[in-house]
Amino acid sequence: MIIVTKIIRLSKIKEILRSIDPLKLIEEGFVAYSQGKVVVPPVGEMIFEEPPGDCHIKYGYIKQGDYYVVKIAQGFYENPQKGLPSINGLNILFSQKTGEVLCVLLDEGHLTNVRTAAAGAVVAKYMSPQKVNRIGILGYGIQGKMQLEYLKTIITCRDAIVWGRKETGLVKYQQDMIDSGFNIETTLDQEDITSTCNLIVTCTPSKVPLIKAEQVRKGTHITAIGSDTPEKQELDPEILRIANHVIVDSIPQAAFRGECFHAMKNGKITKDDMVELGTMISSKTLQRQTDDEITVADLTGVAVQDIQISKAVYEGIL
Amino acid sequence: MIIVTKIIRLSKIKEILRSIDPLKLIEEGFVAYSQGKVVVPPVGEMIFEEPPGDCHIKYGYIKQGDYYVVKIAQGFYENPQKGLPSINGLNILFSQKTGEVLCVLLDEGHLTNVRTAAAGAVVAKYMSPQKVNRIGILGYGIQGKMQLEYLKTIITCRDAIVWGRKETGLVKYQQDMIDSGFNIETTLDQEDITSTCNLIVTCTPSKVPLIKAEQVRKGTHITAIGSDTPEKQELDPEILRIANHVIVDSIPQAAFRGECFHAMKNGKITKDDMVELGTMISSKTLQRQTDDEITVADLTGVAVQDIQISKAVYEGIL
Repeated sequence: MIIVTKIIRLSKIKEILRSIDPLKLIEEGFVAYSQGKVVVPPVGEMIFEEPPGDCHIKYGYIKQGDYYVVKIAQGFYENPQKGLPSINGLNILFSQKTGEVLCVLLDEGHLTNVRTAAAGAVVAKYMSPQKVNRIGILGYGIQGKMQLEYLKTIITCRDAIVWGRKETGLVKYQQDMIDSGFNIETTLDQEDITSTCNLIVTCTPSKVPLIKAEQVRKGTHITAIGSDTPEKQELDPEILRIANHVIVDSIPQAAFRGECFHAMKNGKITKDDMVELGTMISSKTLQRQTDDEITVADLTGVAVQDIQISKAVYEGIL
Repeated sequence: MIIVTKIIRLSKIKEILRSIDPLKLIEEGFVAYSQGKVVVPPVGEMIFEEPPGDCHIKYGYIKQGDYYVVKIAQGFYENPQKGLPSINGLNILFSQKTGEVLCVLLDEGHLTNVRTAAAGAVVAKYMSPQKVNRIGILGYGIQGKMQLEYLKTIITCRDAIVWGRKETGLVKYQQDMIDSGFNIETTLDQEDITSTCNLIVTCTPSKVPLIKAEQVRKGTHITAIGSDTPEKQELDPEILRIANHVIVDSIPQAAFRGECFHAMKNGKITKDDMVELGTMISSKTLQRQTDDEITVADLTGVAVQDIQISKAVYEGIL
């Protein structure tokens, strides 16, 4: 029987997501990935100049699975001036048995946001200090909000402080998060984050380091979300050298993108210093050992996340 | 204003195609490509083993254009046993100004067939002998039919002969093409093609050469359509060495896929022996000069074709 491709738009996707546990999906996905059960070819990329924008194509499949997925995500950073969101995208789910186009998920980038926030929470589950005093967020964009929201099921601490470049953005963040259940302060000075938080998540499109190595106190965990290209960078590469554990979602990708790319280029770490998230989940000795350790996770986003979240949404409508 | 993504399914696409001239679009696209006006990153690829299948992602944009396109095409070669077509796919058209997903063309691979057949016709327009005695087609699949159909507007000859491995396939080809306006013979022996045709189009998924160099007579033009991977091959590499002109749709792609890849690997030709289709269209001296020349075109398919055909269909519904 020939399958008629299903089209699922954002409102329906959000409805289906309510009955899905993305953390479990993402955790299982990364374990499978690090066990070599997932095929993830190199990321496809287009860079636009006028206006500035980028498009990334992530695709892959779990071996012997039912599906393969192609995810297209784009960022056009002048869009807000036109009243449009910066981030957009879609996921396409295919049958691994017949190549049929099972489903087009017109998620407008939302599923990428969800799977990214879920990966941050999975990292925190294994790497954050036992007692989190305060959560520090760098960046007041959508990911800055979602990372905090997704930490709620993992971390009991309800104190947070958010850093951003503009006061207006910080005010809006506080307003948007008024019902989040967190007590949220804001700051224009990164030092307020590093001096008071032992769980920090960076979610900016910065191209220069925002946190210096000398600012990082013992016992701090940092998850770096923002950098997913060779150009973007949020952390002083020295931080990765002094860290007791450096977790990455994908070692092959980390060699070319994100914080580890910069740290390797600067001779601060080598591939041998990195442990993959999926490997760490499966091995207690690779997780945080004491509350004194400095730990860093560098996430650039892997297609296995897109596979996991797309198939769950698709199966949610069947 | 936020754009609602348009979904266009195959029946509507076929309707819109009736008012489109794909040859003109493809010709203009290749000229722009060879002038360096088109950005075409390397093809994305996934290969499946159980059941055997492949998925190719072609994407790109014309600089300073309105759109970018991602085309996903897949082949699952055991599908016919399940009553499904081997070939499937879709095209997605985005705004180059905002990244918005303008349109999902659920063409089931048809637009790839159309743009491929159109490229074959464009090649014939410039490279076929002035007087075509008979058209030879290798392969009785969908492309074997469409190449012949699209040649109709370019070539006045209405005699054709089709080669394939199985009598049943040949009988079906003749039946399907009964209203094509061509007088079609069939054969199980390639020699019947090379000895009677001076315009030959190869459209098979073969992995071994089907035509030997010594079979190719003076004055013959061959367009090789079938090979679009490093594994597939339809022509004896020696044919490319003895050819007076070797045309390719994309020199960077021809170095890694198709007939030229094999000919280069075997030391028969170098990159300097190839001329791009878009360059040849713009220069009379690079086209066929006499009716004695042997000429070969090796087409592996370039994203600029997908851009051109997708934007025309999208604009056709506006």
